[in-house]
Amino acid sequence: MIIVMKHGAGQREIEAVEKVLRDHQLGVHISNGSAATIIGVIGDKSALAGVNLEMMDGVDKCVPIMHSYKLASREICPEGRTVSVGDAVIGGKRLAMMAGPCAVESEEQIMEAAAGVKKAGAQFLRGGAYKPRTSPYAFQGMEDEGFKMLRQAADATGLKVVSEVIAEDQMDTAAKYCDMFQIGARNMQNFRLLKAVGRSGVPVLLKRGIASTIEEWLDAAEYIMSEGNYNVVLCERGIRTFETATRNTLDISAVPVIKERSCLPIIVDPSHAAGKSAYIQSLSLAAAACGADGLIIEVHPCPKCAMSDAKQQLTPAQYAELFAEVRRVAQAVGREV
Amino acid sequence: MIIVMKHGAGQREIEAVEKVLRDHQLGVHISNGSAATIIGVIGDKSALAGVNLEMMDGVDKCVPIMHSYKLASREICPEGRTVSVGDAVIGGKRLAMMAGPCAVESEEQIMEAAAGVKKAGAQFLRGGAYKPRTSPYAFQGMEDEGFKMLRQAADATGLKVVSEVIAEDQMDTAAKYCDMFQIGARNMQNFRLLKAVGRSGVPVLLKRGIASTIEEWLDAAEYIMSEGNYNVVLCERGIRTFETATRNTLDISAVPVIKERSCLPIIVDPSHAAGKSAYIQSLSLAAAACGADGLIIEVHPCPKCAMSDAKQQLTPAQYAELFAEVRRVAQAVGREV
Amino acid sequence: MIIVMKHGAGQREIEAVEKVLRDHQLGVHISNGSAATIIGVIGDKSALAGVNLEMMDGVDKCVPIMHSYKLASREICPEGRTVSVGDAVIGGKRLAMMAGPCAVESEEQIMEAAAGVKKAGAQFLRGGAYKPRTSPYAFQGMEDEGFKMLRQAADATGLKVVSEVIAEDQMDTAAKYCDMFQIGARNMQNFRLLKAVGRSGVPVLLKRGIASTIEEWLDAAEYIMSEGNYNVVLCERGIRTFETATRNTLDISAVPVIKERSCLPIIVDPSHAAGKSAYIQSLSLAAAACGADGLIIEVHPCPKCAMSDAKQQLTPAQYAELFAEVRRVAQAVGREV
Amino acid sequence: MIIVMKHGAGQREIEAVEKVLRDHQLGVHISNGSAATIIGVIGDKSALAGVNLEMMDGVDKCVPIMHSYKLASREICPEGRTVSVGDAVIGGKRLAMMAGPCAVESEEQIMEAAAGVKKAGAQFLRGGAYKPRTSPYAFQGMEDEGFKMLRQAADATGLKVVSEVIAEDQMDTAAKYCDMFQIGARNMQNFRLLKAVGRSGVPVLLKRGIASTIEEWLDAAEYIMSEGNYNVVLCERGIRTFETATRNTLDISAVPVIKERSCLPIIVDPSHAAGKSAYIQSLSLAAAACGADGLIIEVHPCPKCAMSDAKQQLTPAQYAELFAEVRRVAQAVGREV
Repeated sequence: MIIVMKHGAGQREIEAVEKVLRDHQLGVHISNGSAATIIGVIGDKSALAGVNLEMMDGVDKCVPIMHSYKLASREICPEGRTVSVGDAVIGGKRLAMMAGPCAVESEEQIMEAAAGVKKAGAQFLRGGAYKPRTSPYAFQGMEDEGFKMLRQAADATGLKVVSEVIAEDQMDTAAKYCDMFQIGARNMQNFRLLKAVGRSGVPVLLKRGIASTIEEWLDAAEYIMSEGNYNVVLCERGIRTFETATRNTLDISAVPVIKERSCLPIIVDPSHAAGKSAYIQSLSLAAAACGADGLIIEVHPCPKCAMSDAKQQLTPAQYAELFAEVRRVAQAVGREV
Repeated sequence: MIIVMKHGAGQREIEAVEKVLRDHQLGVHISNGSAATIIGVIGDKSALAGVNLEMMDGVDKCVPIMHSYKLASREICPEGRTVSVGDAVIGGKRLAMMAGPCAVESEEQIMEAAAGVKKAGAQFLRGGAYKPRTSPYAFQGMEDEGFKMLRQAADATGLKVVSEVIAEDQMDTAAKYCDMFQIGARNMQNFRLLKAVGRSGVPVLLKRGIASTIEEWLDAAEYIMSEGNYNVVLCERGIRTFETATRNTLDISAVPVIKERSCLPIIVDPSHAAGKSAYIQSLSLAAAACGADGLIIEVHPCPKCAMSDAKQQLTPAQYAELFAEVRRVAQAVGREV
Repeated sequence: MIIVMKHGAGQREIEAVEKVLRDHQLGVHISNGSAATIIGVIGDKSALAGVNLEMMDGVDKCVPIMHSYKLASREICPEGRTVSVGDAVIGGKRLAMMAGPCAVESEEQIMEAAAGVKKAGAQFLRGGAYKPRTSPYAFQGMEDEGFKMLRQAADATGLKVVSEVIAEDQMDTAAKYCDMFQIGARNMQNFRLLKAVGRSGVPVLLKRGIASTIEEWLDAAEYIMSEGNYNVVLCERGIRTFETATRNTLDISAVPVIKERSCLPIIVDPSHAAGKSAYIQSLSLAAAACGADGLIIEVHPCPKCAMSDAKQQLTPAQYAELFAEVRRVAQAVGREV
Repeated sequence: MIIVMKHGAGQREIEAVEKVLRDHQLGVHISNGSAATIIGVIGDKSALAGVNLEMMDGVDKCVPIMHSYKLASREICPEGRTVSVGDAVIGGKRLAMMAGPCAVESEEQIMEAAAGVKKAGAQFLRGGAYKPRTSPYAFQGMEDEGFKMLRQAADATGLKVVSEVIAEDQMDTAAKYCDMFQIGARNMQNFRLLKAVGRSGVPVLLKRGIASTIEEWLDAAEYIMSEGNYNVVLCERGIRTFETATRNTLDISAVPVIKERSCLPIIVDPSHAAGKSAYIQSLSLAAAACGADGLIIEVHPCPKCAMSDAKQQLTPAQYAELFAEVRRVAQAVGREV
């Protein structure tokens, strides 16, 4: 950490800061610049918990040099982690392809969706059983019944189940039916829930919050990992900006940024980013080209009939076409699907 | 709702849409414009649950005319609601003044804070017992011990307690100690929690999510109200924008917008918006001048020693000065503190 | 256009609006909904210039159905336009590859850059002669001398010159040296300048403003086209959001959105979006995969020595590697470089 | 400036950086932290123009400590500047009250507006003669005829004229008719124009760009001041965010931030921020309460008939009421109108 003193801070104020640092067993390097004095702090900053240097007289600001996550950082595992879900490996050469409807609506619907995405080549079946919705009057999901239907459809087709959990008390039930838990964008900073999925040991797909920085996202991953669960996969799904042509703005740059800063795999959700089926193939190809470790895409046997997010769901036929295109791009960059 | 057909949509497509609407007992008005055909839908749109008009052939887009919240709307209660917390009334002529430390840290600290803010004139004591923090390694609050200390300090000084709840299973315990529950910005769309505070019947201070639109915020209030708890007070606390000079950008316009669209009282939290104590008095005066129903401000007996948010907390003396200034502005606009 | 009347608007108010519309030779369709009356306006809305329907008693809001640009729209040219710059064609099967330093700094520097990017396969040499800089104390460019050096380097290597113009009075001089004018992000709504490049007839590369919506960007293109110059190529270069990990947030979705709404070619500038050389190859591949018509990339013979934007410039060797990768991805999606 | 070396940077790399600094006559302080080595640079950073430390091997990042503006900073004039426009002084005890229509539309209109705002108490007449508009098909203003009408109306009523200039070649003509030049939000980074108004010596009202940070805004002021014209008044007019309930989001916090960082006066434009007349009084009171040095408000004798921005213009009667309310709030905070 670096402490920048105010222009005009006096010797007495500088010494007071120095004393606090030395009292906490920290090293101190002082640079008397022409415009301001800078104090470099040497040692483990956590020794300063409960000390507010920025409030001391003469201090202008403290500039942190290190980030707050450790387990999620690249430094701790420079070669990158892979996350295994059964016999599927996320983060290796093969892209993880996840697909299925926004919400589980019926046995027939999820079975048909599972068959369609399996045929196209997907490994994971997605589908919401618990649906957090902006309005209390909107369809809220089939809940545990939905989990059961997902499991049946996945077992019948040889897919893994990835589905959203929204409450701490769900872990045991959800673990019976899901191979991977999804934490939705709205819950990215629901820290109780993060700790609970951390304790569950089940692999976690952690969606980025709609207005979360990449640093906050990695801090959220750290909550899960600090409970001993290192099986975390990040999912970029668009951020909120001023642009309204798309539902959210897909932050495609998050892929190389995560690859640089974190050891965790990252996949992309073009469906929630775009909010419109016409854009999803283009964005999927972009994600595959720039190094994403997989794609999660909404596919519904009859998008017109979907009870939520109808506009952004693909038909199984459209998904099969997308899949073939993604294969070509993946191969061009040395990956496979 | 209005349905805009695509340029070039044919008679067959228009009739298909019309049929769907009539099959759901809705009235239809068709306008054949030079550029596009427009279909006005007459009747209760909820009849269309599960029907995706936007996916029908020839449909360009659907434009909603009404908002999705009802109980939180201005129309339902044009004179506006007041929320009573014991003998305090929020939303009337008198501004609700809430103050206290970011977090409860010890009996002495909260007692001193309570005495200080009471002396200045506050009616409510704030203080976090459960602290959602971005990093798992940061101070997470004193939990139930904190609630008890808050209650003691409030009882000793004649204040009401407002404090954050973060989980469904807390309601009973929290209700023993708090007069008002706060839902934090990160939980504004934690719908399970919203329903739980709705069922509790305890008055709720609902903070705006950091990237939530005003419409989404009112939808969140609707979740609480739809459980029968109409005692909801909104709290504007700054939104996330590109500007980094302040921690968040205080959306002061939310005050008149809420007054126009909603029947609920709205207060302002300048501390989290600014993130810097030097700006808090100015922003408090702005809020009082433009019609806010109260202020919630962080006050700590020793901001330098605070375990969280040190930079944005005021001393009791600074708060007393602010309070006197707010009184003058409130009187200038026909209010009182 | 659709006019939504306020809840409770009376017959007299509705008739008043109807009268205004009919007085302007517009057709009217009235839908008496249960919640509100909707008035559809039929005919050319421009007849209403100077009439403010939203200010009339009882009117809640006016909802426009059509966009304001015409020449830049997809409808007017569904097959899409190509823009020819000498013998180079932008918008066809072949991606337009533009590269060169942020700023022209010397004859040697630009000559070396030109040789490097030509060897890698680029068709266009970029380089700023006039540099709009945030601070008045930063390097402002070599101005007309820079234009001359660009021309010489391009002629010596067989490249086209694309360079930024910043003032109306530059057109004649700049046209002597440049094959294509660039309008920078900061000038996207400098309407005088847009009209001037429109009158010049020289092909224009129109960068998106840092906080401009796609609709505003197309309106800016319309300014140029309405002067008779249809040779406009759009350039997505990142928008301003809350995320600070990258200099700007590359809005990759702009590519499919523009392809749907506009007839103009679109290229991508990953250098200004990322602001960091390590991310540029990934973003270039993403752009090529998702349908962009070209790439403009900063390349400097010695990025370490660059007088501006040093962090985001590639070496010629890095560019050659990127070029080869882009070729593979372009071929995977049926394009070529 | 502080240079943070990468984790693992070696002695050779640190010495290379040190050598560059010493070669440029800069002092060096090295702190060998446990996590990273930090190098403090002592002396005038401008000695490093053309040297890119961040590109050197082993360097992680450079953290600037000082801002790039000097003349606009608070440090250079801690007591703050006032700007005189004839006998009006902006930045003193009295708030500068500017009002008038969005655009000059006719002699009658501007004369009536001038009479109305003068009667309410305004000192400045605003009105656009040159109107930058998003679409080329929208009303573009009466140009020089508009300037003349403004001058006549102002002279007849004893007001000063403030009006927008949009091109370098306008300075002489505009100076004949205007007492103060306005630089619009879209031109805040039109650096040629900034320099031109700087050379003109005429007082300048510098609006904040729609997506400009406060630092960029002060850099823009620096452009004007570096040409010798210190008569700059800043104008906060709302920034672009995700919220759509208002046209822009008024960044009210900009007032105390500017007061802390800059010596320049700052006024507020609630009309463009809100985009809706119903919110303007509330926002005006907020601005007056929090320390703004004035208000610029759109007033039209007949808002319904306005050729632009109709929704956000007040009637003279509404303005008179607002003026009286602002007076009460101004007095409550020790100011006057």
